Amino acid sequence: MTAKPGRRCASCAPVSCGVRCRELHAGEERPTPSPTAAPERRPFSRVTPEDMAFFSKIIPGRTITDPDILEASNMDWLKSVRGFSEVLLRPQTTEEVSQILGYCNSRNLAVSPQGGNTGLVGGSVPVYDEIILSTALMNNILNFDSVSGILSCQAGCVLESLSLYLEDKDYIMPLDLGAKGSCHIGGNVATNAGGLRLLRYGSLRGTVLGLEVVLADGRVLDCLATLRKDNTGYDLKQLFIGSEGTLGVITAVTILCPRKPKAVNVAFLGCESFEQLLQTFQLCRGMLGEILSAFEFLDRECMRLLNTHLKLANPITDCPFYIVIETSGSNPTHDEEKLHQFLEEAMTSSQVIDGTVATEEAKIKALWSLRERVTEALTHDGFTYKYDISLPVERIYQLVTDMREHLGDRAKSVVGYGHVGDGNLHLNITSPTKDPNLLASIEPFVYEWTARFQGSISAEHGLGLKKRNYIYYSKASLAVALMGNIKIMLDPKGILNPYKTLPDDLQ
Amino acid sequence: MTAKPGRRCASCAPVSCGVRCRELHAGEERPTPSPTAAPERRPFSRVTPEDMAFFSKIIPGRTITDPDILEASNMDWLKSVRGFSEVLLRPQTTEEVSQILGYCNSRNLAVSPQGGNTGLVGGSVPVYDEIILSTALMNNILNFDSVSGILSCQAGCVLESLSLYLEDKDYIMPLDLGAKGSCHIGGNVATNAGGLRLLRYGSLRGTVLGLEVVLADGRVLDCLATLRKDNTGYDLKQLFIGSEGTLGVITAVTILCPRKPKAVNVAFLGCESFEQLLQTFQLCRGMLGEILSAFEFLDRECMRLLNTHLKLANPITDCPFYIVIETSGSNPTHDEEKLHQFLEEAMTSSQVIDGTVATEEAKIKALWSLRERVTEALTHDGFTYKYDISLPVERIYQLVTDMREHLGDRAKSVVGYGHVGDGNLHLNITSPTKDPNLLASIEPFVYEWTARFQGSISAEHGLGLKKRNYIYYSKASLAVALMGNIKIMLDPKGILNPYKTLPDDLQ
Repeated sequence: MTAKPGRRCASCAPVSCGVRCRELHAGEERPTPSPTAAPERRPFSRVTPEDMAFFSKIIPGRTITDPDILEASNMDWLKSVRGFSEVLLRPQTTEEVSQILGYCNSRNLAVSPQGGNTGLVGGSVPVYDEIILSTALMNNILNFDSVSGILSCQAGCVLESLSLYLEDKDYIMPLDLGAKGSCHIGGNVATNAGGLRLLRYGSLRGTVLGLEVVLADGRVLDCLATLRKDNTGYDLKQLFIGSEGTLGVITAVTILCPRKPKAVNVAFLGCESFEQLLQTFQLCRGMLGEILSAFEFLDRECMRLLNTHLKLANPITDCPFYIVIETSGSNPTHDEEKLHQFLEEAMTSSQVIDGTVATEEAKIKALWSLRERVTEALTHDGFTYKYDISLPVERIYQLVTDMREHLGDRAKSVVGYGHVGDGNLHLNITSPTKDPNLLASIEPFVYEWTARFQGSISAEHGLGLKKRNYIYYSKASLAVALMGNIKIMLDPKGILNPYKTLPDDLQ
Repeated sequence: MTAKPGRRCASCAPVSCGVRCRELHAGEERPTPSPTAAPERRPFSRVTPEDMAFFSKIIPGRTITDPDILEASNMDWLKSVRGFSEVLLRPQTTEEVSQILGYCNSRNLAVSPQGGNTGLVGGSVPVYDEIILSTALMNNILNFDSVSGILSCQAGCVLESLSLYLEDKDYIMPLDLGAKGSCHIGGNVATNAGGLRLLRYGSLRGTVLGLEVVLADGRVLDCLATLRKDNTGYDLKQLFIGSEGTLGVITAVTILCPRKPKAVNVAFLGCESFEQLLQTFQLCRGMLGEILSAFEFLDRECMRLLNTHLKLANPITDCPFYIVIETSGSNPTHDEEKLHQFLEEAMTSSQVIDGTVATEEAKIKALWSLRERVTEALTHDGFTYKYDISLPVERIYQLVTDMREHLGDRAKSVVGYGHVGDGNLHLNITSPTKDPNLLASIEPFVYEWTARFQGSISAEHGLGLKKRNYIYYSKASLAVALMGNIKIMLDPKGILNPYKTLPDDLQ
């Protein structure tokens, strides 16, 4: 990264350019740029008063320049990356998005699409002065078919609002995330969000039936089908699922929603070893079968952080590993019987050493919060280095153990939790303050370790700004090169979410 | 279509060129070409003795020119389309496929990839003299992980062989088709096959975790991940799922397999009206919930054909509509109880007027055959015009009724059956012999009707040769144009499965 002193971005204070701001913010004043640091600003146009006049005409009253409002949209929620945009646009319709993008493309203005801004890899905020295109006001439900369970809505609908809307209709959303209170469905789709229900209802690649997308040049691609099956040509919508806003702006979604289960049970169990936890997982899949809807875990270190920072009590005996099992089914009696038989077997065979079960909503919430609030507990523990790794399920905890050994006492805490059922580990490492030396010990160690076992260096969080240059650990060069070809095909000027997802050598 | 008398294809008898053969075969000597007729042969090279020498060197003993063997590979199994290839190649390894395609691309030789050749839209056979590249000898299982249920295998594994292999390991394939005895998994993925288990286990877009694909120029794209989650860049493998061999040749697949259910029950029920059938579907989804694994239907006309042509007896009272319901679960007692309660409710509320249930394998097979053998019964009824339509589930039978009224006594039989759970109707129309006038009454009526209700003109069969030009009934022009761009990006010379999937205006 070479910050050229003479170049200034319009959105920064005059003392430094955007590149510098990023450097200062990132606290990395090393001569060799880190792979996570932003590349140099690309030669996009700067927003002019004429541009502002155009936007104000298209979306009167919804062209935001208020620095306080912009502050929240420039910073990611982890407060780990920050952009310097001076313009936030809030369209309400697809037609408005189309006009905005058509104009930006012709003017060579870069655009950073933004949903609920809950991403963890710096993908949802601008890097320099990109115009922020928010879906916040595109929050209408377009249709719900109560026979098929197919929901159509605008991209800016908040996930939790959709869940509440469906609740009355006896349906649920096929995905559930910790960030549900603020994340947008469009952002969920753009990042191929995983979450807590993937084990049961599968990924968005199966449940998303249709998308409406505005391309970089403003053309509207209508793939908003409401059909479970459609084999007429290539499935273009898949390109946009998980492309993090770099190929088009998703403006509407149709999604297949499962029936609301008539019974939900949650069990919180403790195991002596990860080996026992895996045996429990196998037993559980056999005995709970079709009613198993989540199999999550956290380690003893996570529990310590929950106790220390959030004063959450451990409901069972102290153990090295804890499991959260959820069942969802159509017959409460059958489900309880299955769960009971499974627990008896797990206890008898000593796979599980202690446990508690909840069937009432308040206790279910309390047990779930032990898993869901680990992220929050970590923020109180210090500066957190976050990794979201996919591995063969037998391997997932070995990475935590190896990392602990590798780092010794250089880290404050090294904790592991995540989605066992999906082979997805959240590895988190804290230190009292941001620590470049610690980071240098973690990376590329963590990525090399993952690549050795054919894992993915980003299971569900995406690559965004922070992980774009690590893509080669999980994808072959030819695959990455083809991604570059697709980007050029759909966004030849590269105005959509620049510096994200694709590595710098393809930007 | 303009057959130029002076041009001959190498693979035809000298009396006529390939175009003519197709014309004669298709029996359509009309001056205006039908949208289903093959377009003119494109200027690919002809296979020379030097080419044959090259292939024989790469795959000695597996370069087939025997006319009898070629006959079977040139003709689709419906015997509705026929190509004129003189060369069938049977590689065993990805490296061999890579060398073959690299060579064909450099020589501008067209290639028709072929799996089990069970497709219904003329996608799996050559149109002219394309080299047939068969996956028949690529039938090794590469790995099976019994913890995760992830299977890796070569593309030429027969679906039923994979099912048998998994049976011992207490797993099943996530898809099941009537053609399972001959179709290849690579062909299933290339055509995004649906089938009988989609309702429960979802589409291949969710269950296929990885693919290895040889591109048109011979480069090997390794996306053969064995992970449930991987958000590192664009999901390239999705491009190849359902692209019918036009973008690359799938050489290996990894797929997530569900546990084998401990209990399977099948109910065969009769309804007075399609309205009642839909009510039964709703009741069933509520009461059988997570154990429902199929909800299929056939109409009275289908039953008549089964009786007449296959001597299969109706196990219940004569009804206008029949339903096949399958449950698969982990607890036989619970499943039987759920099914019993559902049947009681369905009978009490008069949604269902008669029914029978099977739990033993022989009777289950017998009941399933009433649904699975409709296709076979149709072949005995005369020349069959086949349509595979996706519609909002409330609409699916209306198309059959409207078609019957529209055709009057011009058709011999107009029958409807299919996957209610997926909103997928198989509409079949027979006549004593091939009848261009009848066809002209059916098409474009059927496509226009489908488009009016935002349906898909090909739910699961794909477009292949026969339906390529009807794509615009289900896809917007911009979407089709982008498909053309993707084709050009991945196969600039257009050597892979030419004349298929994309409409003639993009070929």
